[in-house]
Amino acid sequence: MFWMSDAFLTGLIEEDLHLVDLTSLALGLEGCRGEVVASPKKALAAAAGTEAAARIFRLAGCEAEVLVESGFPASAGEPLLKASGQADRLHAVYKTAQNVMECSSGIACRCRLMAQKAKGASPGIEILVPRKHMPGAKRLSLAAALAGGASIHRTGLSDSILVFDQHREFIGGIEGLAKAIPDMRRRFPEKKLAAEVATGNEALILAKAGIDILQLERFSPGDMAETVKAAKAARPETAIIAAGGVSADNCESLASTGVDALVTSWPYFGRPEDVKMTFAKMPFAQKGASKGSPKPPFALEA
Amino acid sequence: MFWMSDAFLTGLIEEDLHLVDLTSLALGLEGCRGEVVASPKKALAAAAGTEAAARIFRLAGCEAEVLVESGFPASAGEPLLKASGQADRLHAVYKTAQNVMECSSGIACRCRLMAQKAKGASPGIEILVPRKHMPGAKRLSLAAALAGGASIHRTGLSDSILVFDQHREFIGGIEGLAKAIPDMRRRFPEKKLAAEVATGNEALILAKAGIDILQLERFSPGDMAETVKAAKAARPETAIIAAGGVSADNCESLASTGVDALVTSWPYFGRPEDVKMTFAKMPFAQKGASKGSPKPPFALEA
Amino acid sequence: MFWMSDAFLTGLIEEDLHLVDLTSLALGLEGCRGEVVASPKKALAAAAGTEAAARIFRLAGCEAEVLVESGFPASAGEPLLKASGQADRLHAVYKTAQNVMECSSGIACRCRLMAQKAKGASPGIEILVPRKHMPGAKRLSLAAALAGGASIHRTGLSDSILVFDQHREFIGGIEGLAKAIPDMRRRFPEKKLAAEVATGNEALILAKAGIDILQLERFSPGDMAETVKAAKAARPETAIIAAGGVSADNCESLASTGVDALVTSWPYFGRPEDVKMTFAKMPFAQKGASKGSPKPPFALEA
Amino acid sequence: MFWMSDAFLTGLIEEDLHLVDLTSLALGLEGCRGEVVASPKKALAAAAGTEAAARIFRLAGCEAEVLVESGFPASAGEPLLKASGQADRLHAVYKTAQNVMECSSGIACRCRLMAQKAKGASPGIEILVPRKHMPGAKRLSLAAALAGGASIHRTGLSDSILVFDQHREFIGGIEGLAKAIPDMRRRFPEKKLAAEVATGNEALILAKAGIDILQLERFSPGDMAETVKAAKAARPETAIIAAGGVSADNCESLASTGVDALVTSWPYFGRPEDVKMTFAKMPFAQKGASKGSPKPPFALEA
Amino acid sequence: MFWMSDAFLTGLIEEDLHLVDLTSLALGLEGCRGEVVASPKKALAAAAGTEAAARIFRLAGCEAEVLVESGFPASAGEPLLKASGQADRLHAVYKTAQNVMECSSGIACRCRLMAQKAKGASPGIEILVPRKHMPGAKRLSLAAALAGGASIHRTGLSDSILVFDQHREFIGGIEGLAKAIPDMRRRFPEKKLAAEVATGNEALILAKAGIDILQLERFSPGDMAETVKAAKAARPETAIIAAGGVSADNCESLASTGVDALVTSWPYFGRPEDVKMTFAKMPFAQKGASKGSPKPPFALEA
Amino acid sequence: MFWMSDAFLTGLIEEDLHLVDLTSLALGLEGCRGEVVASPKKALAAAAGTEAAARIFRLAGCEAEVLVESGFPASAGEPLLKASGQADRLHAVYKTAQNVMECSSGIACRCRLMAQKAKGASPGIEILVPRKHMPGAKRLSLAAALAGGASIHRTGLSDSILVFDQHREFIGGIEGLAKAIPDMRRRFPEKKLAAEVATGNEALILAKAGIDILQLERFSPGDMAETVKAAKAARPETAIIAAGGVSADNCESLASTGVDALVTSWPYFGRPEDVKMTFAKMPFAQKGASKGSPKPPFALEA
Repeated sequence: MFWMSDAFLTGLIEEDLHLVDLTSLALGLEGCRGEVVASPKKALAAAAGTEAAARIFRLAGCEAEVLVESGFPASAGEPLLKASGQADRLHAVYKTAQNVMECSSGIACRCRLMAQKAKGASPGIEILVPRKHMPGAKRLSLAAALAGGASIHRTGLSDSILVFDQHREFIGGIEGLAKAIPDMRRRFPEKKLAAEVATGNEALILAKAGIDILQLERFSPGDMAETVKAAKAARPETAIIAAGGVSADNCESLASTGVDALVTSWPYFGRPEDVKMTFAKMPFAQKGASKGSPKPPFALEA
Repeated sequence: MFWMSDAFLTGLIEEDLHLVDLTSLALGLEGCRGEVVASPKKALAAAAGTEAAARIFRLAGCEAEVLVESGFPASAGEPLLKASGQADRLHAVYKTAQNVMECSSGIACRCRLMAQKAKGASPGIEILVPRKHMPGAKRLSLAAALAGGASIHRTGLSDSILVFDQHREFIGGIEGLAKAIPDMRRRFPEKKLAAEVATGNEALILAKAGIDILQLERFSPGDMAETVKAAKAARPETAIIAAGGVSADNCESLASTGVDALVTSWPYFGRPEDVKMTFAKMPFAQKGASKGSPKPPFALEA
Repeated sequence: MFWMSDAFLTGLIEEDLHLVDLTSLALGLEGCRGEVVASPKKALAAAAGTEAAARIFRLAGCEAEVLVESGFPASAGEPLLKASGQADRLHAVYKTAQNVMECSSGIACRCRLMAQKAKGASPGIEILVPRKHMPGAKRLSLAAALAGGASIHRTGLSDSILVFDQHREFIGGIEGLAKAIPDMRRRFPEKKLAAEVATGNEALILAKAGIDILQLERFSPGDMAETVKAAKAARPETAIIAAGGVSADNCESLASTGVDALVTSWPYFGRPEDVKMTFAKMPFAQKGASKGSPKPPFALEA
Repeated sequence: MFWMSDAFLTGLIEEDLHLVDLTSLALGLEGCRGEVVASPKKALAAAAGTEAAARIFRLAGCEAEVLVESGFPASAGEPLLKASGQADRLHAVYKTAQNVMECSSGIACRCRLMAQKAKGASPGIEILVPRKHMPGAKRLSLAAALAGGASIHRTGLSDSILVFDQHREFIGGIEGLAKAIPDMRRRFPEKKLAAEVATGNEALILAKAGIDILQLERFSPGDMAETVKAAKAARPETAIIAAGGVSADNCESLASTGVDALVTSWPYFGRPEDVKMTFAKMPFAQKGASKGSPKPPFALEA
Repeated sequence: MFWMSDAFLTGLIEEDLHLVDLTSLALGLEGCRGEVVASPKKALAAAAGTEAAARIFRLAGCEAEVLVESGFPASAGEPLLKASGQADRLHAVYKTAQNVMECSSGIACRCRLMAQKAKGASPGIEILVPRKHMPGAKRLSLAAALAGGASIHRTGLSDSILVFDQHREFIGGIEGLAKAIPDMRRRFPEKKLAAEVATGNEALILAKAGIDILQLERFSPGDMAETVKAAKAARPETAIIAAGGVSADNCESLASTGVDALVTSWPYFGRPEDVKMTFAKMPFAQKGASKGSPKPPFALEA
Repeated sequence: MFWMSDAFLTGLIEEDLHLVDLTSLALGLEGCRGEVVASPKKALAAAAGTEAAARIFRLAGCEAEVLVESGFPASAGEPLLKASGQADRLHAVYKTAQNVMECSSGIACRCRLMAQKAKGASPGIEILVPRKHMPGAKRLSLAAALAGGASIHRTGLSDSILVFDQHREFIGGIEGLAKAIPDMRRRFPEKKLAAEVATGNEALILAKAGIDILQLERFSPGDMAETVKAAKAARPETAIIAAGGVSADNCESLASTGVDALVTSWPYFGRPEDVKMTFAKMPFAQKGASKGSPKPPFALEA
């Protein structure tokens, strides 16, 4: 289960709906009732964010139904979600809901696309999404990536051990790291030990020292293929991952090198998918209308 | 002043640093001291996020200095920021700081690029960024856009009145809207009244009815130029804004139509700029080292 | 839609109900069931806060029904809201609910009263409530003002441009401001430009320079009427607003000067309206009572 | 120590400064430096909120000094606080700081005034402020009341036991309460037991039953004096408190009845004290100015 | 009513369920439906936390029923709570729910045990739990203690006046305190005045000075009995409380000294009670299953 | 770096200091200045929480110095921390600081003790602390455990894959799990796959199927030793961990079985270490004292 609390979704709503929707207030939409249907302009390889979008409508006192769950494809124009309720409430949150679906589906579709390409070249390969997302958007970004069929590289600094180039400055370089491996393995028996390397030689040193995961940073496909071979020869159980500049353009050639996975932030950054929000007016028995006096729109009653 | 509280920046840190940095813990970096310098791999038309990045280092107990303030250009390799402190603290937050600078600079540079292109065609034109950013990233996205020389279209639903196509369904279409304008003007004397239109005819109806701002949605440059002329003829003080599908590719031709501004989410979505983080080890008199016993890294003491 | 999230209302509850209601605990009220009806001691020109109050009861696990929606009048003794449930839960939140209705109705009634007076003198005039509310109470205060028929002057610093006397110190005084107007207009095409002025002369300078809104600070009715005439003559589309010391006492004479609106914090500060909370005991089949052992009251089960 | 965390004060700032101060941005105030002095228009019997106001300026990166501490009197025009810094930062928070001082001083002065009047009639009497403040404003309201020399009646439901009329519905009325007292005393040996009563007879029943505190609700001064005498005769250690409709108008006559304290929300609701904020421009060596390019205002660097 | 908001319980969930449950994701449990029953391994003198646990399951989109309410005993193996729903949702929160019940029941049972022992020696005595709980766990700890039949000593610094040894350093020692009592009584007429004492002599000085509560810190049972006698002789209404090192081992002998209550953090710290969570698979009509494509688990839809 | 933000520590302060410290207010401690020294009553194998405690004092406007850093031993009476400042501020937070040090040191010392015992039997063994801490206290509990020399088993559900008995109900039991391993390994190449087993036979099945970590639940030492031998024979790189009922009493015999680590919540639950807080009065030039009027204590000025 990917966790998105009401508090989190309320935060997304409040980013846009700070205090009051002035336009609906000006137009008196609290006296109308409507329905809105969300559908993508183009086919989606993987829809995403529809459950969150539905919950966003519900938090504003509307009814909502998910028609295409996150992770499933949708054809152009296929209804993803339907919501109904007081028109000012629909208007208060529909852009947030739309924005969540558009951005999430964008990430999911890019993951799906890249996964399909990479798996075409190497069926067992996995796309892994890293810590390098838009700051403030980890939850939505990771959820969307999972919907697109990717896995998570690292949720952050607390779930795994990965030694960068930048760490080595402090521990005596690659040799310092190699020497540290046995003690790290003992102290963290439940973690795989991973390190980023910049050359085949570094990879080999660490493979021999017993590293569990080698992250090959910006290797050419040729060097990468060679390094995979050498490192797996040195220690067959080493997982080898390509990282740095991985995109839809080069994922096939990188996948062909025999690496186990590609780490890439490429799916995070790109255009959202267009999702159209079509409104229809519906009959509505306005409560309290008999009072005949102007009624401003207020907090949730339901 | 663009407001970013410590609580906000702490939230960005905690997205990545959930509980503890396992890698630095495993490597014992609390016993080292270092310095890190951030510099862009390519020249930046407008750096952004450097103040926030510096504050992020400070919140982790490091010292930091901004060398290029948000909004200024930077050449390739020019130091943007320098931070120093205990190595485990630098490592605990540098990726977050880097990510903030990279994503912010990406948005800022795209704004600067688009503004330069559009102003080339129409010197007085303004780039306006909308509500359609990555959900959860409004604060960073708007700050970066300002750094890039854009203005804010709407911060959300509570700062302005903008009638979409989706509102008209409930108020009797374009005629309903035209009729509602006088009363809206009276009730909201401090707000400009804006409406999105899809045709030149709609634009003209609303201009005549006294709308303050016309947002022309996905007009061809030809139709747009014609509509600008007609609407300004009908009511010279009307501000006219192009919206929908505005990008770096078409911003010049749209700017040439005589519109006052371009509304566009294009700068929000694209690759971050690469910012390199270069570490150096520095001498460090370890406090308490004489005690001779292993020391785990803990909460801020300073 | 005026947004009040459950988190916001929970915050109001927790201001009063920090951990446990000691009195109900001491009296064993978790074993009783009751009903409470809220009704104003005197007639209300505009009730307010009833939806929020109902939601507060629901957040404590009670049932609640709004009988008079915010913005509608109520006669003395007319039931505004009815809630029912376990007696300790009713008691845990009824004062908070009462307090919200009393304070909100106070603000709403003062707005309604002032609007009626001012509109008697100038039918098209609008009452605008400013940023100057009790700190921490913006959301309730603005919602109540809308319920009373007022509009919002500014939600804060991010929604509008209003140049105070205090800004002019830094920009070369009134002339500096006048010179800055064209560039501000170009950069903020969607915002009306507003400035506070202290004399008719200042007003005229800015009207001629193209300001959109003049806020006349503490003018006598005579000076104000004259300034309205002169400024509208200079630039007919200028909106003119009276501010500073506006109250129920002077709102008619100020309205008669021809200004478009009155900005006033007067409705924010004054006695709450009295709302009586009448309890009745109801039959209750105590769950688990057969166990025969004392039962303390705990977290929500429903 | 009255606790106001940075998070609390940041919340007050963000009520007003949602994202960016558009006016300072439009005027380019980030390039100026200024000083602001706060001083009351009329003499204050008790200033309040100056420490919080100073901290608010500091949270925005300004320097600030408290010149009159909360609880001390100030003469008209006497400087209460001085702050200095970048002009856009001063402008970003000065209204919030002003608002805190004005509303807090209003409450404090009303407490001081009422205390002086009541103590004139009965030197040992105490003014107690209740739970009935503006919702969302407990912290500021109670701090201001203490600054004005009042004490706190109840911070909420978790600190004391006070049986209202509304509780008695569920426990068999006044007799039920009288019977419950011994067990309540045993179970809550550290709490005084208090009850609201509406008649002298009720008071006597409970005094005889051993109640610790009688809260006489809306008694006439005559009835109150008589009840005080009778109840103290029945049980001398009973504390007797007047409540309901207590104001500056009747506090002297109520104090004269011999009650130990007056519970009153009267000081919470009334006009804020006017505090003038006087700005002056100061010389400023603009950092980075040599870069010659427009500089937008961003997050705190200091 | 003991208040536990959804936000509070969400915080407990998120302590464990940071972003996604990787194990259920890896196993594809979103395609299964199950039921879980919680039952204690050994008999519980007082179950606790079951309502909170049920709400935790509901916040994750499951159904849940409390079978033994907090405060009631349960026999070994007796079902305390039953929950059902999508298997990945049950797994996402069951450990948190279990942990809440186990830790809460541990505290409650220790309170119940100690209360039974102490009341065996002195039927009217009360167990009071102090501020000295695990930091971050006040709400759960106090609720559990109430479920176990204890009362709350102090919720914190804002609900009561208790003068420690550490205060006396600043007020002229025990004599300073004795002198301060009359003024404190006048200013805080609703509070009992309490002081910690270390010797019988100190107790007597303060009893004569009119203290309301004496807290005897680490007295031997003999000294305590003597001090109770002397202090009650000096001022019969003085409540006398034993504190410091009170445990299940010495509570009977301390209770026999005639004190009114025992203050003790002993119940807070000890092993949780074991609560077994037994799962069963249930039939489940997977929604959207016909789509035939892999489905990742996402945010709440219900 | 173990992350504890100011917001987190403020939360701990506010658990105890809800609004105001009534006792210091009653005693007028804002007019005094003091110093407090923290020292353990008995020697500590590993102090913990001193940095957090120091920061807590600083958040209340006091100065503080850590004298024994977390993770180091301290002898009885050795000063761990010294703080100084206004007496009411010291009093406002010292119990929270004390409580943090006492509870943290308790956990750290139990970890150190258990580690020493276990390493005596098996030098390379590691103590791992699990998710089963007091709800709401994860951050402090894990930090304290690290200070005591333990490692973290799982921070929660998002950092690792561990299949419990309770999962197997949904995936076809032990065989279902064995079959799922290859696909899980492919999809999560960076994670070790772990499973809890209840018998040696289950362990062997999973070892042969390629599991990375076996968690032996409540095995007798004899069975455990045998299973370690068999499983390591089947797949030498399998990590084997003992779990369930591990305590200081049995950790040596369990360590002797050859397991790589012990998972245990035993250190979380037990008595805090006693830390004495010794106050001394210090000279203090009271600011504003010349004003001669009573001064209440307010928000931070520094």
